[in-house]
Amino acid sequence: MMEIVQVQTHDREALVDITGDIRKLIHSNGWSDGALLMYCPHTTGAVTINEGADPDVVRDILVNMAGLVPHHGDYRHSEGNSDAHIKSSLFGCDQLVIVEDGNIQLGTWQKIFFCEFDGPRSRKLWVQFLAS
Amino acid sequence: MMEIVQVQTHDREALVDITGDIRKLIHSNGWSDGALLMYCPHTTGAVTINEGADPDVVRDILVNMAGLVPHHGDYRHSEGNSDAHIKSSLFGCDQLVIVEDGNIQLGTWQKIFFCEFDGPRSRKLWVQFLAS
Amino acid sequence: MMEIVQVQTHDREALVDITGDIRKLIHSNGWSDGALLMYCPHTTGAVTINEGADPDVVRDILVNMAGLVPHHGDYRHSEGNSDAHIKSSLFGCDQLVIVEDGNIQLGTWQKIFFCEFDGPRSRKLWVQFLAS
Repeated sequence: MMEIVQVQTHDREALVDITGDIRKLIHSNGWSDGALLMYCPHTTGAVTINEGADPDVVRDILVNMAGLVPHHGDYRHSEGNSDAHIKSSLFGCDQLVIVEDGNIQLGTWQKIFFCEFDGPRSRKLWVQFLAS
Repeated sequence: MMEIVQVQTHDREALVDITGDIRKLIHSNGWSDGALLMYCPHTTGAVTINEGADPDVVRDILVNMAGLVPHHGDYRHSEGNSDAHIKSSLFGCDQLVIVEDGNIQLGTWQKIFFCEFDGPRSRKLWVQFLAS
Repeated sequence: MMEIVQVQTHDREALVDITGDIRKLIHSNGWSDGALLMYCPHTTGAVTINEGADPDVVRDILVNMAGLVPHHGDYRHSEGNSDAHIKSSLFGCDQLVIVEDGNIQLGTWQKIFFCEFDGPRSRKLWVQFLAS
């Protein structure tokens, strides 16, 4: 059975550090060895892993992605959020991490981020463990 | 054993909705709980998940990606399709979805798209089930 | 237990073909049927799959990504490598390939590349097999 993590975003574009929530889920489910699939079911969202020590990295990611894929441009989709859909495909809605002996394996500076590019929103992340 | 889905594209750049083919494959194989790996073996293709209700979203994705990574530019690869290779790495050749109780788990607006950026082509998608 | 592949890069930006290392790992571990997860624990790195026959494809990828996400720009992160962090999220730190009957399944022109966007560096790639 998949688990669900609730995420609230507060700006139009946000990367929310969910590393702690994922760690708790692994421990409470007793998942031991394999990989954890995190999946965003929202088409303006994504999951990514990046540097989490300096918040300027998240700021630089969001500002520069907004420069590459601007909010307003040559878009026909009437909801006005095509930029968010494009970023969703670029960052990807699925993300795997290795779990070993019940511990999530992340690099020294890595944190897991839920991405929302058309918020603020109340969102869900789906999580499925795959045993090795 | 992996399964193979055949996909035909009709334009140079296309996102083809293959959600129905993937659903059929899950049911005919009796795959129940885990994750489904979809893998594009072509270096100008990819797999992505995005909004499938309004075809303008696909149009906006393709038009804006063509703006970011144009067909003609500072490329040395003699086949003239370096833009397609770049988009392949940006969208990614692998995509996972969760399968639960024999049903593919997709968000309300999500569809699975086979991407070809150097068509028209007759292509294959490889599919492998990973039990949880 | 996950395995570790060592990768040395020699330029600031590099895509290193690690297909041979991954093949050896599969054979030496006797991994047979499932999928192989390759995971980069470094926040300026990534893993991608693309054309490996003509080295100009890698050159075109790197040159054009440097054009889209330049080394110097509107960045606040003091380490001066925000472009590398952005590319890491765009290419993704995780990559799956199918393994069948002990053989890695790649398309005719596909090679697996370890990506480093802030080198030269001595890096690690983590590898975990997921049985089907």
